Amino acid sequence: MASKPVLYSYFRSSASWRVRIALTMKGIDYDYAPVHLVKDGGEQNKEEYKSKNPMGQVPALVIDGLTLTQSLPIIEYLEETRPDNPVLPKEPGKRAQARAIAEVINSGIQPLQNLKTLQALGDKKTEWAHTVISNGFEALEKMLQSSAGKYCVGDQVTIADLCLIPQCYNASRFSVDMTKYPTIVRIKEALEPLPAFVAADYNNQPDTPKE
Amino acid sequence: MASKPVLYSYFRSSASWRVRIALTMKGIDYDYAPVHLVKDGGEQNKEEYKSKNPMGQVPALVIDGLTLTQSLPIIEYLEETRPDNPVLPKEPGKRAQARAIAEVINSGIQPLQNLKTLQALGDKKTEWAHTVISNGFEALEKMLQSSAGKYCVGDQVTIADLCLIPQCYNASRFSVDMTKYPTIVRIKEALEPLPAFVAADYNNQPDTPKE
Repeated sequence: MASKPVLYSYFRSSASWRVRIALTMKGIDYDYAPVHLVKDGGEQNKEEYKSKNPMGQVPALVIDGLTLTQSLPIIEYLEETRPDNPVLPKEPGKRAQARAIAEVINSGIQPLQNLKTLQALGDKKTEWAHTVISNGFEALEKMLQSSAGKYCVGDQVTIADLCLIPQCYNASRFSVDMTKYPTIVRIKEALEPLPAFVAADYNNQPDTPKE
Repeated sequence: MASKPVLYSYFRSSASWRVRIALTMKGIDYDYAPVHLVKDGGEQNKEEYKSKNPMGQVPALVIDGLTLTQSLPIIEYLEETRPDNPVLPKEPGKRAQARAIAEVINSGIQPLQNLKTLQALGDKKTEWAHTVISNGFEALEKMLQSSAGKYCVGDQVTIADLCLIPQCYNASRFSVDMTKYPTIVRIKEALEPLPAFVAADYNNQPDTPKE
């Protein structure tokens, strides 16, 4: 019998968060292995974890006897092996739209405002994070004009939406003025109450600090 | 009759370069529309180009009546609509490996050492670019131990290889010591003579400066 998948995750990590949404949407039961990104210089930098992901980043997903890394490739793998409750549209042009929105966030915004990059920027960091997120959201707002329905691409929840919600949380941490992005806000509000998004929320994880 | 695809590209852009390799591998004839990233504050920032890609980045590919952006989603679209000469393995686990290697480069290295980020870093920029590329290549070298054959994933050229070659060029621009990454070097040398890689090389583009 196949063993239960294990997700190496940090409650606040946006890449982990995307995968948590996908796992829940697809009804995949999994064990949660917390990796604390701050404590002791970061558990992700210890050799034990780096043997799972040499990049020293969360998430990593152990599933089907494989250890998978990088959030979007993990989600694509889940889509290919568990096609029910799809996170990609059927039509290639729409799939390209969903993936492009996901990549604007995954490679165009998130890496530029993650902890390591901000530390390197010193006292310019808040302004930089603000600029990076605002530029990205401005582009997304335009892209959504030709793709959005109820959600980022039509009326189906896609990989784009899985990326959007954690990035909106990061925007709020940097106090980005969201009134400039009415489509993003509308989609965010439509997504938030969905059960898979509630379950994956950073507030509701085993490693979320109790306050 | 369908019109000829148009690739908006800059000879030195690593994201454009990846797409050029894919187009040539798949035998797709296309017109090359140069977008100069430096001249006049960058043609990618002009409204005319931003109407194609609101992120103001190359590449953009006009094909099948669509305007596609983001290199990896463009390559996935080509793979789905032109499956001959595949750039992804058949088996889901191998596909995940190829995509993960591609993403280490696409989101884990490249955005952190692109022009805008380096400008923000001021006099720390060379050291930062060096660190980012070295850390990424160290991780890739480990990942390749379990995935590589002749190329990044087995003996088939994949999306991972399309990302690796332009990133190796960036590494050489920052004088990264490649002797630490023997597997990367071996794969690079196996890829470079392949016709699609020669055709896509930054030296051989319509907008490559003549010297």
